[in-house]
Amino acid sequence: MDRLPVVVVHGGAGNIPNERSEKSRSGVCSAARAGYVILQKGGSSMDAVVEAVTQLENNPVFNAGCGSVLTACGEVEMDAIVMDGKTLASGAVSAVRNIANPVQLARLVMEKTSHVCLTAHGANQFARVMGIPEVPQESLITEYSRMRWKKNLAPDANPVECQMGKMGTVGAVAVDIDGNVACATSTGGLLNKMEGRVGDTSCIGCGGYADNQVGAVSTTGHGEAIMTVTLARLILFHMEQGPGYDVPGWTKPHTPAVDLLLAYLKGLFAPFTQLPRGR
Amino acid sequence: MDRLPVVVVHGGAGNIPNERSEKSRSGVCSAARAGYVILQKGGSSMDAVVEAVTQLENNPVFNAGCGSVLTACGEVEMDAIVMDGKTLASGAVSAVRNIANPVQLARLVMEKTSHVCLTAHGANQFARVMGIPEVPQESLITEYSRMRWKKNLAPDANPVECQMGKMGTVGAVAVDIDGNVACATSTGGLLNKMEGRVGDTSCIGCGGYADNQVGAVSTTGHGEAIMTVTLARLILFHMEQGPGYDVPGWTKPHTPAVDLLLAYLKGLFAPFTQLPRGR
Repeated sequence: MDRLPVVVVHGGAGNIPNERSEKSRSGVCSAARAGYVILQKGGSSMDAVVEAVTQLENNPVFNAGCGSVLTACGEVEMDAIVMDGKTLASGAVSAVRNIANPVQLARLVMEKTSHVCLTAHGANQFARVMGIPEVPQESLITEYSRMRWKKNLAPDANPVECQMGKMGTVGAVAVDIDGNVACATSTGGLLNKMEGRVGDTSCIGCGGYADNQVGAVSTTGHGEAIMTVTLARLILFHMEQGPGYDVPGWTKPHTPAVDLLLAYLKGLFAPFTQLPRGR
Repeated sequence: MDRLPVVVVHGGAGNIPNERSEKSRSGVCSAARAGYVILQKGGSSMDAVVEAVTQLENNPVFNAGCGSVLTACGEVEMDAIVMDGKTLASGAVSAVRNIANPVQLARLVMEKTSHVCLTAHGANQFARVMGIPEVPQESLITEYSRMRWKKNLAPDANPVECQMGKMGTVGAVAVDIDGNVACATSTGGLLNKMEGRVGDTSCIGCGGYADNQVGAVSTTGHGEAIMTVTLARLILFHMEQGPGYDVPGWTKPHTPAVDLLLAYLKGLFAPFTQLPRGR
């Protein structure tokens, strides 16, 4: 083995209710293990991140695949992205419906088309051509998702508070024994989002980015805020500068990437508009 | 007047056939003039870029609004984005149909929703709520678009050659007398694209980006290649570093941003895979 492979998995930003914390933890651990087994056998970082994210999509605890939050109309529309750090190839789907594993469809967009992103009906049409079965929407909706959606419809509901809850986008980054990095991210998006809302996840440089010469990123949080600063690409730009790079306005002794990450994590729990502007 | 306002307009990358060159030039000039009149009267850079791009969308010579290229199925699906450099607010639509001015709808997404991007049917549904009339698809299709699409269907057609022809995405950047910058981009996408294909235009940091503290960019070219390097954001990152910044691998005495632009323009006429990788 040339070098030790690594996989890092996340199960989404936001406050995890106590009664779901153990399930979240074990879901993330099990997905990370599944990805790591692939890497240990000499599999690619792309295989590892897609496997890890597939497991999280199949796990009803997370807001991706089965377990996705519902749109304002009570439906499931999902976004996903993958990126290969060796070739900079990427694939994404947005606002796709009735698909159990959007991350696998995103990978097929990368591998089987000349495009980078397919959206809505076009993505579903492509899935049919690829032989990916459509699943009933009901199979993607959990009781918990429906309960949160109904709560949000109540006359006294606070929509901002509802959206600030557990977001639960899932993602993974990995480096394999050949030194190739990859990222994958998948989400049901924002609770109560408008039909057709596309967040950061399927947007290259926002929901994820991977480049062998720098690193790989998978993001989670309030999509619109992440998009404002093209967060994944921004983190890699700062990492590319190295620890000696002077970021105007930053004074702490951390590397800029660490600073940025700290500021971002802080931002997740602050009003959305307080995210760093990229400098 | 505090400072001289500026508007820069483009009518898309690619080879312009001789018989269309004069119309392209006059269309771009007239759009730039319309944007400039707004700036001279003290209007905002956002007003100026949206007006300029609206004029180009209405001009059948360009691949945006009326004049959009056709998908593989012979239909029109359009993408557009706007971004305000003062607030970093942005709005976009992707794969939208039957809308005369997608750039105006993108602006409404920014101003009237809590989202950044709406796609496909969701974007059309939002348009209806906003009172934007749907137009018949036929009103967006020119004889020239249909001729190119048919040519592409011929048994001896070279799909790569067809796609390498005039792309004609339109865009504008501006700075107003208050020093605020903005960008707008609009396109019918790639000729013969798959249904639901989303290119760079509606993707923040790819089809456009604007930040008062750095500048504003609107891109045009092969969308998938632009997305690979998140080109708009990449250009601004390099501009942010200033002329003294050392870009690994670059040896010429130009500033990095100019180098990058030169490399990119060269890339437009080279195989798509030869675009710079971002360093």
